[in-house]
Amino acid sequence: MSRGPMQLECPIPDRGRDRIEMAHGGGGRAMRELISGLFRRHFDSPHLAAETDAAVLPVAGSRVAFTTDTYVVQPLFFAGADIGKLAVCGTVNDLATSGAVPRYLSCGFILEEGLEREVLERVVRSMAETAREAGVAIVTGDTKVVERSRGDGLYVNTAGVGDVPPGVELGPAQLQPGDQVLVTGDIGRHGVAVMAARDSLFGFDADVQSDCAPLAGLVRQLVESGVGLRCLRDLTRGGLGAALHELAEHRCLGLVVDERSVPVLDPVQGACELLGLDPMFVANEGRMLVVTAADDADQALELLRAHPDGAGAARIGEVVTTHPGSVTVTGLLGTDRVLDLPLGEQLPRIC
Amino acid sequence: MSRGPMQLECPIPDRGRDRIEMAHGGGGRAMRELISGLFRRHFDSPHLAAETDAAVLPVAGSRVAFTTDTYVVQPLFFAGADIGKLAVCGTVNDLATSGAVPRYLSCGFILEEGLEREVLERVVRSMAETAREAGVAIVTGDTKVVERSRGDGLYVNTAGVGDVPPGVELGPAQLQPGDQVLVTGDIGRHGVAVMAARDSLFGFDADVQSDCAPLAGLVRQLVESGVGLRCLRDLTRGGLGAALHELAEHRCLGLVVDERSVPVLDPVQGACELLGLDPMFVANEGRMLVVTAADDADQALELLRAHPDGAGAARIGEVVTTHPGSVTVTGLLGTDRVLDLPLGEQLPRIC
Repeated sequence: MSRGPMQLECPIPDRGRDRIEMAHGGGGRAMRELISGLFRRHFDSPHLAAETDAAVLPVAGSRVAFTTDTYVVQPLFFAGADIGKLAVCGTVNDLATSGAVPRYLSCGFILEEGLEREVLERVVRSMAETAREAGVAIVTGDTKVVERSRGDGLYVNTAGVGDVPPGVELGPAQLQPGDQVLVTGDIGRHGVAVMAARDSLFGFDADVQSDCAPLAGLVRQLVESGVGLRCLRDLTRGGLGAALHELAEHRCLGLVVDERSVPVLDPVQGACELLGLDPMFVANEGRMLVVTAADDADQALELLRAHPDGAGAARIGEVVTTHPGSVTVTGLLGTDRVLDLPLGEQLPRIC
Repeated sequence: MSRGPMQLECPIPDRGRDRIEMAHGGGGRAMRELISGLFRRHFDSPHLAAETDAAVLPVAGSRVAFTTDTYVVQPLFFAGADIGKLAVCGTVNDLATSGAVPRYLSCGFILEEGLEREVLERVVRSMAETAREAGVAIVTGDTKVVERSRGDGLYVNTAGVGDVPPGVELGPAQLQPGDQVLVTGDIGRHGVAVMAARDSLFGFDADVQSDCAPLAGLVRQLVESGVGLRCLRDLTRGGLGAALHELAEHRCLGLVVDERSVPVLDPVQGACELLGLDPMFVANEGRMLVVTAADDADQALELLRAHPDGAGAARIGEVVTTHPGSVTVTGLLGTDRVLDLPLGEQLPRIC
């Protein structure tokens, strides 16, 4: 592979905190500093993928996509999904957005002593169902048990392998000025659904289901349509805002986004206002950014809207050469602002 | 793939405990019951690998090996290795013993809030060094942070991808009566080294270094030599004893092993006696079983002994058709016994 998705062309300084803080896991600046200041420094490889990406690798003459994520969401079950469905969708979506056809998953459990077997069984059943829906097979796994209060019920890691069809080249390195930025549906539902399930913490109840869904089918349709795709990016930790930042920083191109065209459901907007959150940075688990060549945006939108997982797709912005490395947002009142990347996730353990 | 390494031909009944116990993570009967009674039931796939194996998968016309393990060893550092070295060796060795050339690793961290950054850096540095030694690249990763007392410093998952060269077919399905069973060196060092590092628990100090080592080079030499290899198996959780059981159960062939020929260092033997442990079931992280065709055992032994990681190799047993599904051991006093698989690991969190 000639493209190196890991090379941040606008490096972020490492702030060198002495101890790990919750923010280091939040998908914001603290996490990216840890990645650039520690992991990238030691794990130096031309194939190293960005943290939300799959690596695309040469294996025996083919291109194999490979990715991993660990899931520590709390609580384990919430409206619309659970840690098992999440663990399958998250990894399937990282493969799919790299342009790969997801094929196989591994799963590694860390179980806390005393966990009810019934809880584990519900999670495993959910993983199996979601894997079938996504067209992947769970082929290898591992189970560890830790003492009480050394875990939190269960954590699960999934890694995934897929193959990238010949000719498919997706990634931030493909971005060109004038490219159009689409989002596949309304944002913020996953984060709000998890927060609502923590009712004992917040005392609020939002009638919102997580958007958690495997996007392999939607991506396959897009790729096979021949539409001019540049880059796909799922909108997990850090939400739409973090994904926009990542694209802008990677190529030192700028992005302009019209917030008024970003779909947000009313109950999500309401919950965010109640909790003091910005929906732009709330996690999604079944939404992605789609960057297309300027002339292909309409066709891509049409394709997206014809699919259940893209029915609410919208065009939200454009790639520009002004203000390289940053994202400018036209806000709800029509005024422009630079979109800052928060230090961490607005709420921890959302995935 | 026609062979199905996951199909236990002598099924183990699921005991259906209501809650997860430490024994479920120990590599003994409890863990295998959980795997057969829960994971295999839901994750039904012809490619599903046994828990200590890599799955060997068709990807774009090639055979790709894929495996995962999560590491929760406590303490994080001990004589001869640490959780980082362990996490690389364990996954590299699972790939290598499946006959694959290990190529790429993922890593997923679960960090406990408050972990010293210096500790994380030591672990990451150790992973990077071991990966270089093993000839693999760490290409993708993920970091999650959990609140204090929801973790234990750090946990790390690695998954690994390799390619299986054409013609290589290793696994318990290849076993034939008369095959010879070799071990690549003295056993029990890893488990004893970890126990010694828990001195506050046991108040004993053994001058024993973990055997933790990547076995990719040794395996490659064996495979390329053309010697008649049937099966390789690394001797991690559950040790030599669990690996022997797994082979015997898989094919419903029997194994006879002469315990007097199994190498055990004096300080390991002494520590095991002190702690009431059987070295046959103590974990190793740089040792494997090698099963060869009867006529090729001498050549295999010679090859093993010429390599630093196999210098202490010994022939310890044979595959037989009597007592199918079980392992008979000739003990140190010359009397035979059936080797029982313990319920769990003799000590938890050894890897």
